Amino acid sequence: MTRQNQAPTMKDVAKEAGVALGTVSKVVNGIPVGEEYRTRVENAIEKLNYRVNSYAKGLKSNKTYIIAVMMPNLVSPFFARLTDYINKALTQRKYRMLFYATDYDPEQEQEYVILAEQQKVDGIICLSYNPNLKVSENVPLVSIDRYFGAAIPCVASDNYSGGQLAAEKLIENGCRNLAFMRIGSRLTNEPNKRKDGFVNTCEVRGIPYTLKIVEDGTPYSAFEDFLQEHIKEGKLEFDGIFCVTDSLAHQILVSLDRLGIRVPQDVQIIGFDGAQYFGDMEYYCSTIVQPLEDIAETCVNMVLQDRSAKVPSLVCLPVSYAYGGTTRG
Amino acid sequence: MTRQNQAPTMKDVAKEAGVALGTVSKVVNGIPVGEEYRTRVENAIEKLNYRVNSYAKGLKSNKTYIIAVMMPNLVSPFFARLTDYINKALTQRKYRMLFYATDYDPEQEQEYVILAEQQKVDGIICLSYNPNLKVSENVPLVSIDRYFGAAIPCVASDNYSGGQLAAEKLIENGCRNLAFMRIGSRLTNEPNKRKDGFVNTCEVRGIPYTLKIVEDGTPYSAFEDFLQEHIKEGKLEFDGIFCVTDSLAHQILVSLDRLGIRVPQDVQIIGFDGAQYFGDMEYYCSTIVQPLEDIAETCVNMVLQDRSAKVPSLVCLPVSYAYGGTTRG
Repeated sequence: MTRQNQAPTMKDVAKEAGVALGTVSKVVNGIPVGEEYRTRVENAIEKLNYRVNSYAKGLKSNKTYIIAVMMPNLVSPFFARLTDYINKALTQRKYRMLFYATDYDPEQEQEYVILAEQQKVDGIICLSYNPNLKVSENVPLVSIDRYFGAAIPCVASDNYSGGQLAAEKLIENGCRNLAFMRIGSRLTNEPNKRKDGFVNTCEVRGIPYTLKIVEDGTPYSAFEDFLQEHIKEGKLEFDGIFCVTDSLAHQILVSLDRLGIRVPQDVQIIGFDGAQYFGDMEYYCSTIVQPLEDIAETCVNMVLQDRSAKVPSLVCLPVSYAYGGTTRG
Repeated sequence: MTRQNQAPTMKDVAKEAGVALGTVSKVVNGIPVGEEYRTRVENAIEKLNYRVNSYAKGLKSNKTYIIAVMMPNLVSPFFARLTDYINKALTQRKYRMLFYATDYDPEQEQEYVILAEQQKVDGIICLSYNPNLKVSENVPLVSIDRYFGAAIPCVASDNYSGGQLAAEKLIENGCRNLAFMRIGSRLTNEPNKRKDGFVNTCEVRGIPYTLKIVEDGTPYSAFEDFLQEHIKEGKLEFDGIFCVTDSLAHQILVSLDRLGIRVPQDVQIIGFDGAQYFGDMEYYCSTIVQPLEDIAETCVNMVLQDRSAKVPSLVCLPVSYAYGGTTRG
C-alpha cells in the first residue's frame, strides 16, 4: 500500500498555493482569510485533489463524528430496518455509522464496546443481549430494548401497551379464549412486557388465556405440539393468539395451515413488530407495529445530546395496530 | 462534552507506572520490553482504564482498519443480507465497517465517496447507481453489480448464467411459452444480463418468449395489465414466467391470485435473488439464488489486497436454483 505516500498533504497545498501552512489550515477549517489567499488555496486544493485528513481533524477536535451501532445482525428485518433508520438519523446530523454485528454473543458485545471506545467514537447505540455489559463513562451509550439501570438511557417501544392492544383487538374482534406464545431469551428485557400487558387486559376483561412460553433454542415443534394438544374434535380451543413476534406468528400460521385450522375464521392471529414483505410491502400478519423511525430518532438525539443534560433512564414510544389479514379487522 | 479531558493519556500511564513514555508506547504496540516494565505499564493501564487512541494510531500507521460500505438502503432484504455478510467478512479480518446509505441517489453517492476518502478509510465497497462515479486512485474501491471499466474491480453474481438457468428450469418443468418481466434502471449493470441469458436459452431451445420490461418508476399495474391482456378465455398464454427479482415475482404472484390463475398448475414462476421470509426462513418463491456470502468474501478480499497485485476487472460468482413452491420442481 503506497497510497498514503502519494496523497498530497496540507504542506503540498501550501507550497502549490505559495502561502503559509496556517493559511491552508484556516481555509480548510472555515476560518476567514483574505479573498485572494482563499482563492489560491482553493485552486491548489482542486489541482492537487487534496482531501482533508478527517483523521487528523478528529484527533484535534476530540470529535470523530462517528457513532458505533451494535445489532445482533442485519438478516432479521427488524434489526435491518432499525439500523437503516438509525443510519438515516445520523446522516441527517452529519454523523457516520460504524456498524458492529454481535450475533447475540455477550462476550463479542463487550469486546465491541471496548473497540468502539478505542476507535474514539462519539457514542454507542446498542441492542444488547449482555445484561452485564460494562461501558466506560467517557463514551455515551444508548441502549435499545434492554434496561441497564438509571445511568444508561434505554429506548424501547411501549411493549406493555402493545400487549394490551393485542388483547384488546382480539377481544374486540370477538375472541373469547386467548393464547399467548413466546420464544425468547430468559434475560430481563423490555419485550418481555408484551406478555404482561396482554395478561393484564385479559384479566381486566375477564377473558381466559393460556401462556405457551419457551426459551431460546427450543425447537419450534414445541408450538405445533402445543397447538395439536389443544385441538379437540377438529376444533382449536383458542379463537385468538397473540405471538411475541411476527416471525413466530408466521410459523404459527404455517402450522395452523398444516393442521387444517383456518385463519381468521377459526382463529385470529396478531404478531408484534410490523414486519413487511421485502421490507416495505404488505404486513406478514395483523400486528402491533413498533415505531422504528421514532426509536431511531430518539436514540440518536439522546446519544448526541450534551452530557451535562439530564437524560431519562427509559423512553417508551407508542406502538400502533395494523391489520394484516390474520384477524377479522 | 468534557470526556476527552478526563480520559487518561499515554503520559498519565507513563507517570503512573514510573516509566518513560516510549516504554508505554512499546507495550501498547506489542514491542518487547523487560518483564518488570511490561507488568508496571499493564497495571497502570488497568488502574487508569487507559484506552489506546486508535485514532492517533491510525494517523501514524496510515491505516484505519475501516472500510466504507455503500448500499442504497438496509430495508431491502437483498442489501441488508449482503451488508451483513460483508460486515462479517470484514470483522473476521479485524476491519470495521463504516456504513453509508445512498438511497439510489447518484449525487449522494459521489458525496459519500469523497467523505469516505476524507475519513481515510482503507477502502470502499459500493453498490452504486452512479455510472459516472468519480473515485480517487488513492482509495481502493470494489464495485458490486456495476461495471465501471477495467480500473475498478466489479463483483457480481453470474447473472447471465442465472437467466439461462431460469429458462432451463422452466422448460425442464414442461413450460412451452415463456415470459420475462423486469422493472429496473435503464443504466447498464450486471443484473441486466439476466434477460440476455434467459433469451439466449429460449432461442437455443426454440421456445417462444415475450419480454415485458418497464423502467423504474412505472406503476406496478403495468404488469397486471400485461397479464390481463394475455389471458384468453380464462387461460394465461404463458405457462412460465421469469421475474428479474423475487420482489417482482411476489407482486406477480399476488396479481395472478387476484386474476384466478393458479401457481404452479397454470403457470410456473421463477424469481431471482434467493430472498427468504424474515431473512432466513422459506424462500418467497422458486428462485435463482445469488451467492451473497461469496460475493461479500470476494469484495472484502479484493478491497484489502495489495494494490500492486493485478486485480480482475469483473468477477462473476456462480448462482444456483432453489425450489420455493412456485414451480413443479
